[in-house]
Amino acid sequence: MGNGASVVEKTARLSIAVIGAGYWGPNLARNFRTGPAWHLAAICDLDIDRARRVADSVGGVPVTDDLHDVLSDPLIDAVAIATPARTHHAIVMAALEAGKHVIVEKPLADSGVAGREMVERAGEMGLVLMADHTYCYTPAVLKIRELIADGFLGDILFVDSVRINLGLIQPDVDVFWDLAPHDLSIMDFVLPGGLRTTSVAAHGADPLRTGKACIGYLAMPLAGGAVAHVHANWLSPTKIRQMVIGGTKRTLVWDDLNPQQRLSVYDRGVDIEQVSKGSAADARAAHISYRLGDTWSPALPEGEALAGVAAEFAAAIREGRSARTGGEAGLRVLAVLEAANRSLERGGAPEPLEPLEPLAVELVSGGVVR
Amino acid sequence: MGNGASVVEKTARLSIAVIGAGYWGPNLARNFRTGPAWHLAAICDLDIDRARRVADSVGGVPVTDDLHDVLSDPLIDAVAIATPARTHHAIVMAALEAGKHVIVEKPLADSGVAGREMVERAGEMGLVLMADHTYCYTPAVLKIRELIADGFLGDILFVDSVRINLGLIQPDVDVFWDLAPHDLSIMDFVLPGGLRTTSVAAHGADPLRTGKACIGYLAMPLAGGAVAHVHANWLSPTKIRQMVIGGTKRTLVWDDLNPQQRLSVYDRGVDIEQVSKGSAADARAAHISYRLGDTWSPALPEGEALAGVAAEFAAAIREGRSARTGGEAGLRVLAVLEAANRSLERGGAPEPLEPLEPLAVELVSGGVVR
Amino acid sequence: MGNGASVVEKTARLSIAVIGAGYWGPNLARNFRTGPAWHLAAICDLDIDRARRVADSVGGVPVTDDLHDVLSDPLIDAVAIATPARTHHAIVMAALEAGKHVIVEKPLADSGVAGREMVERAGEMGLVLMADHTYCYTPAVLKIRELIADGFLGDILFVDSVRINLGLIQPDVDVFWDLAPHDLSIMDFVLPGGLRTTSVAAHGADPLRTGKACIGYLAMPLAGGAVAHVHANWLSPTKIRQMVIGGTKRTLVWDDLNPQQRLSVYDRGVDIEQVSKGSAADARAAHISYRLGDTWSPALPEGEALAGVAAEFAAAIREGRSARTGGEAGLRVLAVLEAANRSLERGGAPEPLEPLEPLAVELVSGGVVR
Amino acid sequence: MGNGASVVEKTARLSIAVIGAGYWGPNLARNFRTGPAWHLAAICDLDIDRARRVADSVGGVPVTDDLHDVLSDPLIDAVAIATPARTHHAIVMAALEAGKHVIVEKPLADSGVAGREMVERAGEMGLVLMADHTYCYTPAVLKIRELIADGFLGDILFVDSVRINLGLIQPDVDVFWDLAPHDLSIMDFVLPGGLRTTSVAAHGADPLRTGKACIGYLAMPLAGGAVAHVHANWLSPTKIRQMVIGGTKRTLVWDDLNPQQRLSVYDRGVDIEQVSKGSAADARAAHISYRLGDTWSPALPEGEALAGVAAEFAAAIREGRSARTGGEAGLRVLAVLEAANRSLERGGAPEPLEPLEPLAVELVSGGVVR
Repeated sequence: MGNGASVVEKTARLSIAVIGAGYWGPNLARNFRTGPAWHLAAICDLDIDRARRVADSVGGVPVTDDLHDVLSDPLIDAVAIATPARTHHAIVMAALEAGKHVIVEKPLADSGVAGREMVERAGEMGLVLMADHTYCYTPAVLKIRELIADGFLGDILFVDSVRINLGLIQPDVDVFWDLAPHDLSIMDFVLPGGLRTTSVAAHGADPLRTGKACIGYLAMPLAGGAVAHVHANWLSPTKIRQMVIGGTKRTLVWDDLNPQQRLSVYDRGVDIEQVSKGSAADARAAHISYRLGDTWSPALPEGEALAGVAAEFAAAIREGRSARTGGEAGLRVLAVLEAANRSLERGGAPEPLEPLEPLAVELVSGGVVR
Repeated sequence: MGNGASVVEKTARLSIAVIGAGYWGPNLARNFRTGPAWHLAAICDLDIDRARRVADSVGGVPVTDDLHDVLSDPLIDAVAIATPARTHHAIVMAALEAGKHVIVEKPLADSGVAGREMVERAGEMGLVLMADHTYCYTPAVLKIRELIADGFLGDILFVDSVRINLGLIQPDVDVFWDLAPHDLSIMDFVLPGGLRTTSVAAHGADPLRTGKACIGYLAMPLAGGAVAHVHANWLSPTKIRQMVIGGTKRTLVWDDLNPQQRLSVYDRGVDIEQVSKGSAADARAAHISYRLGDTWSPALPEGEALAGVAAEFAAAIREGRSARTGGEAGLRVLAVLEAANRSLERGGAPEPLEPLEPLAVELVSGGVVR
Repeated sequence: MGNGASVVEKTARLSIAVIGAGYWGPNLARNFRTGPAWHLAAICDLDIDRARRVADSVGGVPVTDDLHDVLSDPLIDAVAIATPARTHHAIVMAALEAGKHVIVEKPLADSGVAGREMVERAGEMGLVLMADHTYCYTPAVLKIRELIADGFLGDILFVDSVRINLGLIQPDVDVFWDLAPHDLSIMDFVLPGGLRTTSVAAHGADPLRTGKACIGYLAMPLAGGAVAHVHANWLSPTKIRQMVIGGTKRTLVWDDLNPQQRLSVYDRGVDIEQVSKGSAADARAAHISYRLGDTWSPALPEGEALAGVAAEFAAAIREGRSARTGGEAGLRVLAVLEAANRSLERGGAPEPLEPLEPLAVELVSGGVVR
Repeated sequence: MGNGASVVEKTARLSIAVIGAGYWGPNLARNFRTGPAWHLAAICDLDIDRARRVADSVGGVPVTDDLHDVLSDPLIDAVAIATPARTHHAIVMAALEAGKHVIVEKPLADSGVAGREMVERAGEMGLVLMADHTYCYTPAVLKIRELIADGFLGDILFVDSVRINLGLIQPDVDVFWDLAPHDLSIMDFVLPGGLRTTSVAAHGADPLRTGKACIGYLAMPLAGGAVAHVHANWLSPTKIRQMVIGGTKRTLVWDDLNPQQRLSVYDRGVDIEQVSKGSAADARAAHISYRLGDTWSPALPEGEALAGVAAEFAAAIREGRSARTGGEAGLRVLAVLEAANRSLERGGAPEPLEPLEPLAVELVSGGVVR
């Protein structure tokens, strides 16, 4: 950028470096390598051999063990960060200072304070800060979001998510921080206005004495008397990935492990005829009716979610707008996780959750022009 | 009866009257009519036509609309009560005063105080007071109890129960009191020592504004860091009846809607080698291992659960012992439900649950001799 | 009928006697007892005690062990026959001679010749002869018939039916005659024009040496290159009741053991663009495309199939028309079963099946007036 | 082998070239590249660019478009052939003449005559000719083979295989040659003594007028009154991969699309007590009993099947023995497919199948010495 040659290139592709070559980095590298909007410019890891292995697996890309090499390269537009959560803040802030757009693996940061600083700095700099909430870009979740946005389910009554299996007990995080970010980021993505709960009650159990919760439940009241709930569990012998979203018009079941019918939309439910006068139980009971209609399972396109992540990141940069899973989405997820921590410390008491304060700086159109 | 012949008969069978001919009464009547230990002596209902219809359906039995007719009949040994919960206390107390053994539909009573009085009175009178926790006598639950008692699952780590479907919104009770008694009575039946939780957190939602919770979650810590959890829901378009019981040795899944494989026992799990010295996370992680063994699904006998209820009631009377789902089991279920009520009123805060005080009077052998 | 008294009665209810009080008779008795179009007049069985038990179970009905009592009663309009297949011909012929409308349990008769004689005699007499193909009156099969008739599936490409479980080995019939009548009568009911196959190849196996086939396969070519196939099996440890009906527009799967989604209609398939000129494989391949559309599961009403059988029998009598599962449907099923027998004797060679000759006598409007 | 240089090499690895870089070649290349017993020496394809792409994908391997380069290289011990079936004979014969061991993709050849010549030539040359029946090396099939060999199922009563989905209509082969080789090679692998049927009846349908069967059924009697059956279908909207193997002791169900429970072994069945005297149906019926025992699902190791193929190929070469899916297994599959063709031509008439004549030349120990 800044010289004639790069202008030509930029009309074609944005240039990105992947920071962190551990578990998730190779997936990012592969998708930025093959995504039509992107040029994968480098892989960066403190362990240069690890960086090299990832670079080889995608057909050969420059490697470095020095973050400065990446941040000081004027030809690099953006960085994708897949390092441990505790390092996100420092790396993201440095990248933003260097004028790079940033996509960062979930969770956005290891604390809400750190995350907020990152989001605000990105806003001030006019840069895109995107949370890599990969699940949101699966065909199933994109469809769910569309159905809800179109009013197909009606008003949301409840969201119940179960994510259980015999999982690896993580050395550094509990089952809430390991699994629930998926459920929370999906809820935030599909619910109109995002996941806006007024409190979080977290119930955890550590019956094997591993030092952290291996079984977890999150209960979160939503507006209008609705509720969201998550069951995350590392100790279940069977694997379940299921979310039920109940609405006044229809109810949707997403069974992610059933490739032949991932989404089912049931035209079944309870209709309450709201009567203005007379609120006695009997009167009310007389106005309850039950629908037992058809079930419909929409066809879903094939497609790797991370390809959608890469495309959205590029589009947000080019269009000078926030990403669909922007930094604020990441903050909302973090806020729930931190409230869950506090609830756990208080024995499961519901922990109030303040709505996020408006951020000082908004992304403005043209902000990507440096 | 009333002559020598009946003495002969009574050595063969116990005589019982069914009180209440509504939804559940016909089932009781049918099973006491056909059960080999019982003679069905009468059906009693304030609505004599309703009583008559039930009597006809089981081949003709005397009917009455006067409870006194039943309680004053010296040939009747026992009564089975299937009237609304709010009437249980008065009828049960009268029956006990009249020297009848009593079986009563769940919930035992509409309050813990009422229930406790009933249990104590039965003890004082040396009479059997049994809770009709029908599910406990299904082949599946009997097998679960046996497997746990034999140590086949090891120590219990968690119990997670889901009981959801598009259910009738009850006019008088919420989803906790309608559905959770099943889960709670089953847990009480299969867990060694019964369901003994130190607190109950209840999260309810009434998004349709029916005036009571239609969606409910119960979180209950168990001894040793374990947890029990119930999800009850009237608004789910799909029906699920599933309980997972995780143990240190094996984990059991009961899927009541899969008649071809109701019980599955998984030899899968996490093994933690407890090391006395060195509790650092790394050291601990080094001693975690995962088992991925076989799955086993025991064959279950056929059999209607209520037939088992009738048999157990007769056996308890004859043997002068408490029933396996005795009044105390009913009290433990009531205690959880009442704590759930209090938790709901406090916005989901965990509500402490005192262990039931020892009851003053114990059933003694010979108590059945009148 | 034919006299004033019966006219009065007919406006109210038709009168029927059930012949045979074994396995199926009680079901018939119950449904004719409760069906609004019927008056259950008598139960007839050679074993008068068995008749009496059935009569008691439906609230008391006259019984007899003499068929003549029934056939000579001028107030009885119709008989429902649930005796062994080998007795059908004699009883049905006698009933028709006596001017009774007849419904007869499947199979219609124990031979095509016998069945044909019955059908022709009913036609000559202007009486309804209905085959009790019960499955055809389930909500699922009625819906399938409707969908096909409406062209929703397009032209039928294949019908594949699997009916397997650990079944009782019957003393007198093989697995084809025990199970396949269900599949064949359903196919006959839902396929436009009935089940019209030009040949039947039957492959049976008797690996336990019971003296008859316990495992059976039927392959039946249909018009236009389509095929129907049945797999019937008494030795399967798992129970499957599934029929797939493939069409040019959509394909339907009926899974009778999945009460939550019995019918699924898939908008998936292969489209062949028919090109008039150029039939080379390459050219053809270029015109194949694949549809991967939505899945739809229609809601089905509740309802016992036999109630529908009773209603249809009454309607056919009143309207002077053939029943929807009339004698000819029974003959088509018999013709396939007899061809299967011949194929088995010839080691599985396909056995040609002539189209049924037109019957000499047609039911005419008004034929029911005697 | 037999000279100094190769002795050194052979203690380390066998050297192999992959011929054919189309659909299956990359999988072979990857597994021979990573398999510990193998050195991947070259990729050969007439389309050198295609060869190069495969070579790149496995980290760089010499490529050639000239088969002679491979066959004349004295350092290459073996070739893996993944070219169209019609070319197998010529390439395999040339490779054998050049002293190479050969593994060839299914089907072994495009005719039984061609296949037999290949097998005989390999025998004469003392070389291993292996059929790449990949499915046989999946953990599930290896377990099935072991269970049957250990007598766990008892005598085999039936094998029923269903392999249906919305499949690509192949330009050159029908559904029998496309899908059934999987079922047939698996049956051949797990049945003691291989798949030895005395006849094949094939029923095909081409309702879309594609010019070849898109729906197919194969019925094959086995010894002792047992039967094997295959249902292959390109037009099913749902995907099923299920094989049921019934035995006198137990019955096994393999559901390949259920990763949580691929294998289920049912201790359910029918027991016939064989009575020497008195063969009347009634007497026999009196000696039928039903078992309804437990279900057991063995844990299966993870592992890619092709890695097992590569290991078996190496072991057969080193040990101078036939491979477990050797050329003769390929011939038995071919024989069934050819008989199916003849049956189809004759309208589904069962086509007798002669047992394969003993082959003139047997692999002898030491035969691998060149």
